[in-house]
Amino acid sequence: MRRVKLIVAYEGTNYCGWQVQPNGCTIEEVLNRTLSELLGENIAVTGASRTDAGVHSLGNVAVFDTKTRIPPEKICYALNQRLPADIAVQSSCQVPDDFHPRRCYSEKTYEYRILNRKIPVPTLRRDTYFYYRPLNLEKMQQAAFYFEGQHDFKSFCSVKTSAEDTVRKILSCTVVKSPEDIITIRVTGTGFLYNMVRIIAGTLISVGTGEILPESIPEILEKKDRSKAGPTAPAHGLTMIGIQYGDEIQRKSI
Amino acid sequence: MRRVKLIVAYEGTNYCGWQVQPNGCTIEEVLNRTLSELLGENIAVTGASRTDAGVHSLGNVAVFDTKTRIPPEKICYALNQRLPADIAVQSSCQVPDDFHPRRCYSEKTYEYRILNRKIPVPTLRRDTYFYYRPLNLEKMQQAAFYFEGQHDFKSFCSVKTSAEDTVRKILSCTVVKSPEDIITIRVTGTGFLYNMVRIIAGTLISVGTGEILPESIPEILEKKDRSKAGPTAPAHGLTMIGIQYGDEIQRKSI
Repeated sequence: MRRVKLIVAYEGTNYCGWQVQPNGCTIEEVLNRTLSELLGENIAVTGASRTDAGVHSLGNVAVFDTKTRIPPEKICYALNQRLPADIAVQSSCQVPDDFHPRRCYSEKTYEYRILNRKIPVPTLRRDTYFYYRPLNLEKMQQAAFYFEGQHDFKSFCSVKTSAEDTVRKILSCTVVKSPEDIITIRVTGTGFLYNMVRIIAGTLISVGTGEILPESIPEILEKKDRSKAGPTAPAHGLTMIGIQYGDEIQRKSI
Repeated sequence: MRRVKLIVAYEGTNYCGWQVQPNGCTIEEVLNRTLSELLGENIAVTGASRTDAGVHSLGNVAVFDTKTRIPPEKICYALNQRLPADIAVQSSCQVPDDFHPRRCYSEKTYEYRILNRKIPVPTLRRDTYFYYRPLNLEKMQQAAFYFEGQHDFKSFCSVKTSAEDTVRKILSCTVVKSPEDIITIRVTGTGFLYNMVRIIAGTLISVGTGEILPESIPEILEKKDRSKAGPTAPAHGLTMIGIQYGDEIQRKSI
């Protein structure tokens, strides 16, 4: 047996998210079925980021164990021949047997993209959130800064979470605007709570409209109350960009 | 009666191109139907660029005549409420009665986008042409230069054309590559023949692979023979970017 790591890109539009569930098709399910067919074994992948329905990915990570003789680096090519056009495995390689995509120390990057102009652009409708009202970029940038560092993100976590410890570390949170009116919120952290990036994005949008002051972010964090933060921004604006694991694979104490 | 100009963006994936035709739904048809319903008149638009099936647009132009009392600048908002999500009118304004989107002097810009890497990216699959083999950017740039200026583009025109005069003027033709492996061919000209940008793109791809030498472009132009140029690149890589009309509207002698 050896353990293989996949980097998985997908357009989430037509999926009920990553994780296998009774109603509706998921990315994990399609990977399991396609890998099982390709390798002639019963394969069950373990994913790093269990993205919600409608969320996209350029670099999510999944691992599985296999007896196949196909060289690990070639699996991605054989797999892509069989996968639907909205999922494409970017690379495959062997990893140590104790590598676990969620338990090993990692830095994950997400981007939330907002098309901020008066009229929507059809070619961008699936992976940017169209927002009509003008957003103040400078204020959003000021507010984003307060998310950096280690904080209790209870106010920025869905009440549906099962997490007991809601302290997480954000390494960077930046906001930029492109000439095409796309505001990109880029967040890198060592761990994220349920809906955390979408609530950060929704809160930054409220900052952009003036409903929330940039300086009040520390107060919202301190309150540890979901109702104090902004709304959860829609799923389709979010993309899982990529995950960096340490050169040495360390087990995180969980 | 007054004449109204629309700037029309669309994702062409689900349409049989711009122009009304017996089989399948077109952009022109959807605009005619939606405008007629909105304004309570029989509306027939005239388009500037009659894009092929699968081609996208950020800035195509259409005009129509109407008796409506709705202010011309407001028509786009009312229209977008009724249009499907893959068509969005970017602006509407009144123009002189003799303004004609094809006969008036204009400079049209198209972009052809190629995703040039080993593995496709699902979120880019509808509006970039995925091309696996490595392309030499510098050679493509050298070749692109030869298209600039006034030439007989008979070699770069579908044999299905009805055009008698195949001389056209290209104001600029550039090739750039983004950090995300997207090669963008941007072409601006005062007029284009049937499939001309897609054949230029297909030829530049053949230059990128080494099948055609950059220096042989002038020779291919001189031959006036479609079979000497490269293949017609697929429609979905092409986007109509925008059209600039002269400040003074001049009639082109046709």
